[in-house]
Amino acid sequence: MKIEILCTGDEILTGKTVNTNYSYMAQRLTEAGLQVHWGTTVGDDKQSLSRAFQQAGERADVVIVNGGLGPTVDDLSQELAASAAGVELELHEAWLEKLKAFYSSRGRVMPPNNIKQAMLPAGSEFIDNPIGTACGFAVDIGRARFFFTPGVPREMRRMVTEQVIPRLLKLTGLEVVTRLKRFHSFGIGESRADELLKDIEPLLPDTIKLGFQSHFPQLETKLAAVGSSESELDAALAPAEQMIRERFGNCILCEDTQTLEALIIETLRLRHATIATMEMNSGGNISNRLVNADTDGSVMHSGIVSRHINQLASTAGITTDSLEFGIDTACHLAQQLRQHTNTDYALVALVAREPADDNLRSGADIVIAIATEQQVVNRPARLMGGREWISLGSTEMALDALRRLLFDLPIDEKIDFEQQ
Amino acid sequence: MKIEILCTGDEILTGKTVNTNYSYMAQRLTEAGLQVHWGTTVGDDKQSLSRAFQQAGERADVVIVNGGLGPTVDDLSQELAASAAGVELELHEAWLEKLKAFYSSRGRVMPPNNIKQAMLPAGSEFIDNPIGTACGFAVDIGRARFFFTPGVPREMRRMVTEQVIPRLLKLTGLEVVTRLKRFHSFGIGESRADELLKDIEPLLPDTIKLGFQSHFPQLETKLAAVGSSESELDAALAPAEQMIRERFGNCILCEDTQTLEALIIETLRLRHATIATMEMNSGGNISNRLVNADTDGSVMHSGIVSRHINQLASTAGITTDSLEFGIDTACHLAQQLRQHTNTDYALVALVAREPADDNLRSGADIVIAIATEQQVVNRPARLMGGREWISLGSTEMALDALRRLLFDLPIDEKIDFEQQ
Repeated sequence: MKIEILCTGDEILTGKTVNTNYSYMAQRLTEAGLQVHWGTTVGDDKQSLSRAFQQAGERADVVIVNGGLGPTVDDLSQELAASAAGVELELHEAWLEKLKAFYSSRGRVMPPNNIKQAMLPAGSEFIDNPIGTACGFAVDIGRARFFFTPGVPREMRRMVTEQVIPRLLKLTGLEVVTRLKRFHSFGIGESRADELLKDIEPLLPDTIKLGFQSHFPQLETKLAAVGSSESELDAALAPAEQMIRERFGNCILCEDTQTLEALIIETLRLRHATIATMEMNSGGNISNRLVNADTDGSVMHSGIVSRHINQLASTAGITTDSLEFGIDTACHLAQQLRQHTNTDYALVALVAREPADDNLRSGADIVIAIATEQQVVNRPARLMGGREWISLGSTEMALDALRRLLFDLPIDEKIDFEQQ
Repeated sequence: MKIEILCTGDEILTGKTVNTNYSYMAQRLTEAGLQVHWGTTVGDDKQSLSRAFQQAGERADVVIVNGGLGPTVDDLSQELAASAAGVELELHEAWLEKLKAFYSSRGRVMPPNNIKQAMLPAGSEFIDNPIGTACGFAVDIGRARFFFTPGVPREMRRMVTEQVIPRLLKLTGLEVVTRLKRFHSFGIGESRADELLKDIEPLLPDTIKLGFQSHFPQLETKLAAVGSSESELDAALAPAEQMIRERFGNCILCEDTQTLEALIIETLRLRHATIATMEMNSGGNISNRLVNADTDGSVMHSGIVSRHINQLASTAGITTDSLEFGIDTACHLAQQLRQHTNTDYALVALVAREPADDNLRSGADIVIAIATEQQVVNRPARLMGGREWISLGSTEMALDALRRLLFDLPIDEKIDFEQQ
């Protein structure tokens, strides 16, 4: 089945807005085992839209159109869809009632323009939009089935996932439940991940697709599955999930929609524990991620950021002679910080960058120390790369060391990104 | 002149990579006064590419193709361009020599595959790539002139800006120098900016285009100019720049490629001054931005991040009874922090969020205080919006208050985003 995506709108055409709607749709379709073979972008212009509808209707079996369903004069999708399909526009009474109810629930009268959003090509299939005023619809143009979706990202995402993809899977004769299982790992590069799982891929049924996406320094490993029921998906995915967990081992940080920082904060919260951090040359990212994940502010006591060890120390009122970068200093600071802030955990990450610190071939020494009531653990490492890379890598390594400590995993397991 | 952009590659087609090359190209073309009227995306697939070349060659005057110039078998652009143009591939000797020299300068022998990158359609126009191994070229297909550019973003950006756009401007008969003048402001919303400048737009010559791009909480105001020489651009832009500076006044943070945080750090560095910060509920963004802008680490002493006033204070060793949110507390903390860290400036930003803090209709009270040797100044405000919005807005407001203090501007001028 040849599927095309047709994005409309001047903001997208002129590059003012980056077209993330396209990449979202293409990714979700690919993950559902469907193949996107063509993408088109045109502006809010009658001639271009008509030509794009006609050409896509000759090339494809299915066309997903995004945008142009709003209430203003430059929203042309319904009108041109009707004309390309050779039918009139027709009022969809039920949607008009819903629009009116939507406005009256907000104490407003529906502006007359919005009636346009309830005018659909005669004979088209209505597609519900539970969270917006632009409904979708499907209609045949040329040899293709066209699905029209709203340009507002969250409305488009929900409609594509819940309504368009199941319809496409039915058209292909495939079954209609899909699931995306995600593993987030740190320490395994994409090529080694591929290597680690290369004997797994041939064992997977055709209904499960394995894929990777690198969000440095994390790697996302995805299993996209299609089946006839949730229980069938459970059964089909279980062995593959199990294999990934075995092969990736301690490098799996979290799964699905969870984040590493949220996992840490939740774990500490459940244990009624608090934490303070101190970081040098990791760009303030450690405190940034933890403080933002700590939604009720009960876990993260405070974070101190500086570019110099002695300034880190003096800011926290740690009186000391001149401190040298190294494991002893990091451990000392962690213990002192824990006492000073009266917290259960203190995390210290010190990064010593080489002078030419934005050269991709330069490197950095890193020491992470974590103090608890019982002990002080440390994790030294050396990473290579430019400044941004080192900031991100050392932040991830510090948070990962804390996760490993919280779950009794070895904190000094070597990872792919460090110099051995 | 009808211009199309044709992006090739499976990574783009399947949505694995977001197509920022497209938006960059479309934006640059629009800014140069050129009009993009169609965008196409196809994968590394002979049939789709041939069809895309043929259809674009029928619709457009100019087609910019991106990607497919690499050395591997799935890089098909040269081969299919030749076949669509009805010519053979021909070795470009000079480029082959350059490729060989490139490899030998790195102590390597050129892999035989790379010869492919020097095979161009016979009679095509060579386009140099000073920073990569994929040269560009131009050739006629159908009624259109096709320009082929590499997929690597920095190579594409340079080739489009330095070589493709000047050629297109020549084709249109327009002159060939372009400039993009940018103003970054804080405190003026896009609609008010539009209002403030609405009488300016009609006065601008056709060769200058005014545009806005919102990067909340900053607004970017752009003057895209085309002319025959740099001095002509200087003369044409000067009155428009002057008008924008007058209308936006103190709200202009910085211009062109400078950032607010870099401006602050540079200003402090020139004055041999240092700074420490303390922030509550701004997500750690203040210290994050300053520490990252302080490239040599000589200005930013340290930053403390917490969700609670008393924890902020105790972390910095400020002994105090229970502190209440408010102007007095912020000023007290700023003075104490300055003494404690022995810095020239201390910046404190306290944000008190309402309990339902991720509701777009909730709000936050903000107090910013800055202590110097001579004085302590403060800036209270109230912002509305969700958590992310409040974090970004309060961070910008704190850095802006510091900028205003450094340049002797009023620090409590009301802005559009605050509740009056």
